[in-house]
Amino acid sequence: MLGSRAMVLHLVSRWSARFFWASAGWRRTYAQGASFRLKWLGHSLGINGPLACRGYSSVSGSSEVMLTSERYPVQRLPFSTVSEEDLAAFECIIPGRVITDPEQLQACNVDWLRTVRGCSKVLLRPQTSEEVSQILRYCYKRNLAVNPQGGNTGMVGGSVPVFDEVILSTALMNQVISFHDISGILVCQAGCVLEELSRYVQERNFIMPLDLGAKGSCHIGGNVATNAGGLRFLRYGSLRGTVLGLEVVLADGTILNCLTSLRKDNTGYDLKQLFIGSEGTLGIITAVSILCPPRPKAVNVAFLGCPGFTEVLKTFSTCKGMLGEILSAFEFMDSECMQLVGQHLHLTSPVQESPFYVLVETSGSSAEHDAEKLTSVLEHVLNSGLVSDGTMASDQRKVQTLWALRERITEALSRDGYVFKYDISLPVERLYDLVMDVRNRLGPCAKHVVGYGHLGDGNLHLNVTAEAFSQDLLGALEPYVYAWTAEQRGSVSAEHGLGFKKKNVLGYSKPPVAVDLMQQLKALLDPKGILNPYKTLPAQA
Amino acid sequence: MLGSRAMVLHLVSRWSARFFWASAGWRRTYAQGASFRLKWLGHSLGINGPLACRGYSSVSGSSEVMLTSERYPVQRLPFSTVSEEDLAAFECIIPGRVITDPEQLQACNVDWLRTVRGCSKVLLRPQTSEEVSQILRYCYKRNLAVNPQGGNTGMVGGSVPVFDEVILSTALMNQVISFHDISGILVCQAGCVLEELSRYVQERNFIMPLDLGAKGSCHIGGNVATNAGGLRFLRYGSLRGTVLGLEVVLADGTILNCLTSLRKDNTGYDLKQLFIGSEGTLGIITAVSILCPPRPKAVNVAFLGCPGFTEVLKTFSTCKGMLGEILSAFEFMDSECMQLVGQHLHLTSPVQESPFYVLVETSGSSAEHDAEKLTSVLEHVLNSGLVSDGTMASDQRKVQTLWALRERITEALSRDGYVFKYDISLPVERLYDLVMDVRNRLGPCAKHVVGYGHLGDGNLHLNVTAEAFSQDLLGALEPYVYAWTAEQRGSVSAEHGLGFKKKNVLGYSKPPVAVDLMQQLKALLDPKGILNPYKTLPAQA
Repeated sequence: MLGSRAMVLHLVSRWSARFFWASAGWRRTYAQGASFRLKWLGHSLGINGPLACRGYSSVSGSSEVMLTSERYPVQRLPFSTVSEEDLAAFECIIPGRVITDPEQLQACNVDWLRTVRGCSKVLLRPQTSEEVSQILRYCYKRNLAVNPQGGNTGMVGGSVPVFDEVILSTALMNQVISFHDISGILVCQAGCVLEELSRYVQERNFIMPLDLGAKGSCHIGGNVATNAGGLRFLRYGSLRGTVLGLEVVLADGTILNCLTSLRKDNTGYDLKQLFIGSEGTLGIITAVSILCPPRPKAVNVAFLGCPGFTEVLKTFSTCKGMLGEILSAFEFMDSECMQLVGQHLHLTSPVQESPFYVLVETSGSSAEHDAEKLTSVLEHVLNSGLVSDGTMASDQRKVQTLWALRERITEALSRDGYVFKYDISLPVERLYDLVMDVRNRLGPCAKHVVGYGHLGDGNLHLNVTAEAFSQDLLGALEPYVYAWTAEQRGSVSAEHGLGFKKKNVLGYSKPPVAVDLMQQLKALLDPKGILNPYKTLPAQA
Repeated sequence: MLGSRAMVLHLVSRWSARFFWASAGWRRTYAQGASFRLKWLGHSLGINGPLACRGYSSVSGSSEVMLTSERYPVQRLPFSTVSEEDLAAFECIIPGRVITDPEQLQACNVDWLRTVRGCSKVLLRPQTSEEVSQILRYCYKRNLAVNPQGGNTGMVGGSVPVFDEVILSTALMNQVISFHDISGILVCQAGCVLEELSRYVQERNFIMPLDLGAKGSCHIGGNVATNAGGLRFLRYGSLRGTVLGLEVVLADGTILNCLTSLRKDNTGYDLKQLFIGSEGTLGIITAVSILCPPRPKAVNVAFLGCPGFTEVLKTFSTCKGMLGEILSAFEFMDSECMQLVGQHLHLTSPVQESPFYVLVETSGSSAEHDAEKLTSVLEHVLNSGLVSDGTMASDQRKVQTLWALRERITEALSRDGYVFKYDISLPVERLYDLVMDVRNRLGPCAKHVVGYGHLGDGNLHLNVTAEAFSQDLLGALEPYVYAWTAEQRGSVSAEHGLGFKKKNVLGYSKPPVAVDLMQQLKALLDPKGILNPYKTLPAQA
């Protein structure tokens, strides 16, 4: 006990000289009142230039999204309903940050893909863990369900209410707490936007260990809660390795402080792992300690056209063998993806038309050595016919332009209509078979069936677009896609999580014993089930 | 459900063509009956040449080790006692593999450091997960306590019984199940010896993501159960990232199959994380799926002498900056360590006498590029006075000779007398202050106070030797070392775990809320507390 107390005291004194508080500008977006949601989607975070295109834009279409409770067979659980007294109590805890304005609530009730919609009547915007603790203590006592919300960029309907859950947003918890400029360990609040953190650590010669298309909006707390994978996974691995510590508020308001900044710590069970990837159903992450790798001195990107998927796979093997430790990304997309980014976003392919495209990135500590390695790879793949055309970039602007082709596919798809999204882990040699099977199966019923993703991680994004949501199309896709995946011992959710939309397919990737144990963990940590209900785990019989 | 079943069937068909069963030689050690323990410590696994020195040798001293229950204040919990009927029941489950011979039991009752000793009357040696399941189902019903045992190379008394717990050894569960030679994913039983696995994957151009001094004896299941760190942690990160799947038998005998081989899988809570680092207290790991990195084409080692610890730190910063992605280890040892490996093992320093020594390893994909990078680092550190003398090696034999200086410190210490061992995570800049403080504090009471370890991970091994165990010396060391560590917000167990000897100091690194939650997890997964009792968590009030 003495030890623990000493530690806490020391936290303050040790870091005090290194506290890097974010500038007032970080809050700009939210200080503008009712219009914040629009600006948020429109990237008004002060980001200009090529980077801005790496976040999501708002999805077109102004028609009202159907209520989740109307589209899906889901019953409201017997939670209490928010009363005037409850609002007054919240107002005491976070004065001026209890939002009931219907216009502001509208944006927080709908996911960014505009596929699910809840009807919450209140949005809470705490600034500190202590406030989150008080809110949860109150909700737990009152049996009020709570929907934690970060950047609301999730793909599976996990970040918006299903019914009238209280929305607890981490948006105002956006302070950097400390950064250690030798070890590269960043400690920050959960609501920091990934792109802001990225810029922050880059200025100090480090990079964030994760990067994803939604970086302009997503919060680091949400990234951790969903165990986000993304574009740097191949090189820097999972958040389960790079997240060093977490502060979490449990369902009853207890603050669990595991916010250490040590690379190694084998004292007891690693509790933070419970919360990584649990999608806000076991606790609300309020602060994160994360290990940032040194900023590479040289980054090169090659964008290549391949005549077939076999050649894509062989190109990958070649890159792994010849680039070794400097390979930092290996992404692929099919020709339909290229067609869609051309049609909806007016991006043009830098190489001649091909059935497949791959993006290879290297990150290393010597520009000369890296260029030499990449050049010999390119010579090899061009000479051996694995690649029909290619381009290479090392200046930042062109690197970003090439990355945009891959990163903005999600956005292009959203503009194409209603999108059925699947995020699958498969043995890499079978990865594209699923896309072809689904394309054949759906025929003209689908507008587009596309495949792209993180080939280096065995992670396929299979997307199907249609003019509008259709129960028939859904029936043709599910459970077909899940059964196909299970047959290959794949995962029905590689990196997006289960959220609301995929919770019932957990059984395709996990045996009943595992699902039972998950339910027991949920019951242990959240006995009343108030945290992000209707998500992640299937309803119990 | 359909999906899960399909998966299991597919496991067999998919891998059947790639099954690599280990040769009969793998079992040689255990086929020789009563003498196996001696041979085990003496490395009779068919290993010859320089590699053999990387495992532990048996500790000198033939006197009986004091019983744990006599040295420490610990009360036996009300478990049942093994009866003749129980032995008969075990014999039905694993005919011929129920060991009650006192001589064989002796070795399994004592830890390799000869510091703790139990009095178990029975050793069980299952070969399959199904047998482990049947054994646990029986023990759970009968309320018999079980001590899982891998290579018995632990540092904290976690792998031997405290009283008369049934010893369940994974030694005969030593089969490779599958290896995928493109992805590098290895699936194997828990009792495979790390060095055997290492050799197995190296022949296929991969390496194990972990390496440690005990490799010649330790089991992969034990490595995972203790979340072993070791010598490759700096480069390949934690087992929490590289272990892709586990099969675990729970306290009541239920088999939890999470033995997937996917780099990414966000379907529900990541249950395997519960068992990584839980030291056999939540379940018994029976099989492991692990991602092996490609075998580097070039490995270089530099062994350097530094005039002071400040220079060690500066050398580390220089290496991180200039070697970047090819830096694969940065180890340090003080002059007393060098003195001990000289005195007890007759190893000689390859560089002139210095207050500190560092071992820098690079692993990369181009011998030419790597040598160029390392040479310019060495020029820089020699010219700037950070290093007073150094040597570099790239041929395997010399590389191993240099590594032996660092890896055999543990062995040299054991030959020096009774060893008090501390395994601490600290901010790197304070790492050696603790060694100096303890040296000053103990004065001539200690034979030697030495510091060495994984500097690149902020991990110090502080060791104190004395002629014999002494309660006074222990009192001078504890809680002093722990309080000192807590004040720096360090970890009182970086990589060794808590086992029996450190379970009561958990509170120095974790707050009471976390300890409570750990106790709840233990109660959920092992309600009768039969799995490795008296370990990891402090006794509850």
